[in-house]
Amino acid sequence: MKKKIKKIYAAILIIGNEILSGRTQDKNIAFISNWLNSKCGITVNEVRIIPDIEKIIVENILILSKKFNYVFTTGGIGPTHDDITAQSIAKAFKVKYEYHNEAYTILENYYGKNKFNEGRKKMAKMPRGAKLIYNPSSAAPGFIIKNAICLPGVPSILNSMVENCKRYLIKGLKVHSKTLNLYTVESNISKELGLIQKKFKKFVDIGSYPFFRLGKIGVAIVIRSSSIIQIKMAKKAINKLVKLKKIRKLKI
Amino acid sequence: MKKKIKKIYAAILIIGNEILSGRTQDKNIAFISNWLNSKCGITVNEVRIIPDIEKIIVENILILSKKFNYVFTTGGIGPTHDDITAQSIAKAFKVKYEYHNEAYTILENYYGKNKFNEGRKKMAKMPRGAKLIYNPSSAAPGFIIKNAICLPGVPSILNSMVENCKRYLIKGLKVHSKTLNLYTVESNISKELGLIQKKFKKFVDIGSYPFFRLGKIGVAIVIRSSSIIQIKMAKKAINKLVKLKKIRKLKI
Repeated sequence: MKKKIKKIYAAILIIGNEILSGRTQDKNIAFISNWLNSKCGITVNEVRIIPDIEKIIVENILILSKKFNYVFTTGGIGPTHDDITAQSIAKAFKVKYEYHNEAYTILENYYGKNKFNEGRKKMAKMPRGAKLIYNPSSAAPGFIIKNAICLPGVPSILNSMVENCKRYLIKGLKVHSKTLNLYTVESNISKELGLIQKKFKKFVDIGSYPFFRLGKIGVAIVIRSSSIIQIKMAKKAINKLVKLKKIRKLKI
Repeated sequence: MKKKIKKIYAAILIIGNEILSGRTQDKNIAFISNWLNSKCGITVNEVRIIPDIEKIIVENILILSKKFNYVFTTGGIGPTHDDITAQSIAKAFKVKYEYHNEAYTILENYYGKNKFNEGRKKMAKMPRGAKLIYNPSSAAPGFIIKNAICLPGVPSILNSMVENCKRYLIKGLKVHSKTLNLYTVESNISKELGLIQKKFKKFVDIGSYPFFRLGKIGVAIVIRSSSIIQIKMAKKAINKLVKLKKIRKLKI
């Protein structure tokens, strides 16, 4: 087994007017980010949501594919006129937009020759050189070209496909996390918590998030690091503070 | 009443490791976007989610505030060390980061002099020249400076504050929409729908979104335009297609 040592970063590019307009609540960002971290050790460092406009897709693909190890796109690979992700990515990477032979065969077999109409054929068109990401739910594959991984927008279909991305990805360092749920308010511990973060700043990220649960307010302290030992050390320091301030912990 | 004629565009900048990591499911994007369109006639054209890192916040504020009429930020204006939105925006706009007198008074009155500790005082620090956005839920105000509107990350608090942004915003053209839910698959209508979109491309956006409801698959056709007449015309053309193809409509 290869030693996992590198930090690998990804961006997510959500393509779709329906998310931007607020008509549809996005569910793919949290899913992809959690999956990438837990299964591949890849950290998502930026997300963008943009409209179905070719020029804007091209621009963002170029920026994000340069800035990060991977860029995952969701949406815009279906059969309709507003599905323009594949052709936009072909344009961004200056390659032909054409039928992918294997994708064509998969879709022709799935629908049957008679029902393989123009819209369905469109889903077999991809940037030249794309490799397929198989779709166990509804046949139409996603694809990877260079470091751009293109997935559909429908969450249930996307969820069923991510495992098929794995073979193309370089694995990195997984970020572990430990959460302490405290019955206090942020401002009661903010000063000391800031000092603890300062002490551990090289390896640990400490986040503080207010919560409301069962009618009570509290703060979730999230300690994140690729080193479990560092997490334990930061946790010890925070527990000391919790004891000193006589703060009650919520056990969950 | 002023005549509403201009198209006004906004970006949303979500600041927070907890959203990027997938720990927290964002709920602010859809809320802000829907509210801006329905109440202010402002269209959200880009969303970015970025980590709590000053350099990255500064960079994104500068880009988005130039590119759009408004940029709405969420998150990072609380009392803890990871709340760095206000100081980052001061840096971006090259103004001092200092106590805002009115915010200081509001918070001092809310907590009481004895309990107005360092963390709470931090929430009164803002970029010089900021105007307050009052917070009816938990006192700590948001603010607007230039065209950047800074709101908290907790959805219930944010929701209670948006009405107080209104007075600072120039109203634009509201985008109306009409949805037709059809019991068909996208590829059955994709060709003709593309032609209809082409015919109406100047004033109307037509989106096509698969749905699964009560065990049946269907397609939601969403017609969007700032002109109700244009929506009606596009709807008529789509209804003609629906009749021709003998597609059943879902009445909701």
